[in-house]
Amino acid sequence: MTLLGRQAKAASRQLAKLTTAQKNSCLAVMADALEANGKAIQEANGRDMDAAAKSGLSNAMLDRLKLDEKRIAAMAKGLREVAALPDPVGCVLDERVRPNGLRLQKVSTPIGVVVIIYESRPNVTADAASLCFKSGNATILRGGKEALHSNQIIAQTMVQAARKSLTDFPEHAIQVVATTDREAVRELLSLTQYVDVCMPRGGEGLIRAVAECSKVPVIKHYKGVCHVFVDRDADSKMATDIVLNAKLQRPAVCNAMETLLLDKAIAEKFLQTVLPAFNEKNVEFRADPASEAILKAKAKRVKAATEQDWSTEYNDYVLNVRIVDGVREAIDHINQYGSAHSDSIVTRNEQRAREFLAEVDSATVYWNASTRFTDGGEFGMGAEIGISTDKVGARGPMGLEELTTYKWIGYGTGQVRV
Amino acid sequence: MTLLGRQAKAASRQLAKLTTAQKNSCLAVMADALEANGKAIQEANGRDMDAAAKSGLSNAMLDRLKLDEKRIAAMAKGLREVAALPDPVGCVLDERVRPNGLRLQKVSTPIGVVVIIYESRPNVTADAASLCFKSGNATILRGGKEALHSNQIIAQTMVQAARKSLTDFPEHAIQVVATTDREAVRELLSLTQYVDVCMPRGGEGLIRAVAECSKVPVIKHYKGVCHVFVDRDADSKMATDIVLNAKLQRPAVCNAMETLLLDKAIAEKFLQTVLPAFNEKNVEFRADPASEAILKAKAKRVKAATEQDWSTEYNDYVLNVRIVDGVREAIDHINQYGSAHSDSIVTRNEQRAREFLAEVDSATVYWNASTRFTDGGEFGMGAEIGISTDKVGARGPMGLEELTTYKWIGYGTGQVRV
Repeated sequence: MTLLGRQAKAASRQLAKLTTAQKNSCLAVMADALEANGKAIQEANGRDMDAAAKSGLSNAMLDRLKLDEKRIAAMAKGLREVAALPDPVGCVLDERVRPNGLRLQKVSTPIGVVVIIYESRPNVTADAASLCFKSGNATILRGGKEALHSNQIIAQTMVQAARKSLTDFPEHAIQVVATTDREAVRELLSLTQYVDVCMPRGGEGLIRAVAECSKVPVIKHYKGVCHVFVDRDADSKMATDIVLNAKLQRPAVCNAMETLLLDKAIAEKFLQTVLPAFNEKNVEFRADPASEAILKAKAKRVKAATEQDWSTEYNDYVLNVRIVDGVREAIDHINQYGSAHSDSIVTRNEQRAREFLAEVDSATVYWNASTRFTDGGEFGMGAEIGISTDKVGARGPMGLEELTTYKWIGYGTGQVRV
Repeated sequence: MTLLGRQAKAASRQLAKLTTAQKNSCLAVMADALEANGKAIQEANGRDMDAAAKSGLSNAMLDRLKLDEKRIAAMAKGLREVAALPDPVGCVLDERVRPNGLRLQKVSTPIGVVVIIYESRPNVTADAASLCFKSGNATILRGGKEALHSNQIIAQTMVQAARKSLTDFPEHAIQVVATTDREAVRELLSLTQYVDVCMPRGGEGLIRAVAECSKVPVIKHYKGVCHVFVDRDADSKMATDIVLNAKLQRPAVCNAMETLLLDKAIAEKFLQTVLPAFNEKNVEFRADPASEAILKAKAKRVKAATEQDWSTEYNDYVLNVRIVDGVREAIDHINQYGSAHSDSIVTRNEQRAREFLAEVDSATVYWNASTRFTDGGEFGMGAEIGISTDKVGARGPMGLEELTTYKWIGYGTGQVRV
């Protein structure tokens, strides 16, 4: 692990020197190479699939692991899209001239060495490596053990293609951790002299384990317990659209709604309105006593919410419902039980909306929009390395810009301090 | 500690709601109260001084601990200066309208709960608390055990004055850890649900101990091993001024130079030029063989540098000297041995300067200026909570802006994801 870290740090120095044109042309040849090498990639992936099937991996997991021609083409397309994005490095973020004439510039730079820890999908290897590379960072990738051969051949294909096209391309710019030993992760994340940041992607268990053992900064979100609060002054049609979208459009993702909060003035009527659509999808409600009293007559599936339900990410057709006495109670509920990910208020009342937006302490807050928009692509970042609910470093969706840090450059003419 | 953390988190929700005018008027009454309460503060400080003297604290340390009328006035002045600075909260950092009409704003917000761990000077209590307060954060302060009474009365004076003037001022906005037990720090820094960031200030030992035990993000710099590289194309007079300033103006601070790197083409001549001034201050050189050969004839104190010297912060009249073969060797030396704090190149050659500024991987890099400028005041930040050599979160000097994070606010008109 120490060797891997040292090699990555050395590579990061080289990467920081590449021009935008060099980086983009590397990404283009990497994309071509993934397609050209498709047969070998599918063979390596086949070995992973065979072993995974023998070890009894579920069909759903096997499907995530599989790389077919279409998925390889999608990876290549992703690389070409990253090439087309603006270079996030070298942007002047702030500039000032001091009274002594010293000109100070705050300039975006790569972070250095980024460790990405993820689960079974091997396409993350290409996505994460390309975003880190475009932002001038060296990457150390640690995917799921069942995808090791697939991850290795993807990284190898990218590096070899880039080296053939650009002699300055450092061979350790993209490295895959070859061992599946868990202790290796702990060791890697203790190398504060080489590793600058770790971004784990996956379930809460994986992320907690990484955060617990890491000595390097970790940027992460544990889970997405997202809320929609329907205020007494909500447009009913708009609230219905947003609530159904937030829950039903794709329940398994982190920005889907887990808890619906309803102002008591409109709760009963609103629940009657949305119930048919939820029943149609067989949604199970976990309700507080007040909403349970309303729901039990017509809901197909309803039970009393437990204390733990309020902070649970179901990723499924399950929805917490609670009736609150106004926006204040809604804000308090979200700050207590939420995961600081994405929360929305639906209302025509500007004052209550402002209160909600200011006081809900989450990475992303919405007024009259679905929580489902928290996503790098939807935010116009072009691509996403992940979402952060942390407050030090990036917060919310993270694209290329969020893979950079900055340095201060002082341009002097001989200034000394008096 | 859990109670302290929970109280701080609750206070931080209240602080985030205060207006700029409310915060500034609180800072003004806090400043007045520190002066009005000067006698009681000096009495409490006297108890600390007596105990410290009995425990055999050095005179230098006793002087740091002492609060006299002048130092109390300086604290009050500091608070008034913070009041005069712009509010860093609520600034729109980015704004975009998506094709679906969703308007996204990236807005600066307080971080939440900031833990400051520091050593003996009690004035840090007022400085840190006022900067955190102005940026909307709740503070938990853990100063040196010898300053406990002083720190407590300062915080108490500030809080009581603010509460008298503003009923919404939360009493737990500024809290001092009452115990001097070391285990308490470990416990406090494990409260990830309440504490958002820790900023330790002090010697490398303190900071390493904090970073080692903390489960919350730590923003820090371990030490300042700063370099000046004098290129072969440096203006000799300018290089002399910068080198002498960087080393001699205030050797005990983190942005003073510890290592002088000289291009071999000008090394001998340059050393002859600066030697008298260094000899006058009795500077001890730790030299590589090439510079030792030059220095030994005329330097008052010179010895061979050990490998460890290159990464040592002396904070004293001791200077490492090394002769290098051009800017490339200088960059490699700095990236290997430096502390990523502040490094300077003196040259008239723009290409070499650009190379140095781009490739030295430090928080602040200078071209033709002294390293001594790395400071919140000198950067025009108005005040400084510390300096960071980290890459996640703030980097370089940290003022009010660096005590904020951001959230994304989405303003919709009913948008749902398709």
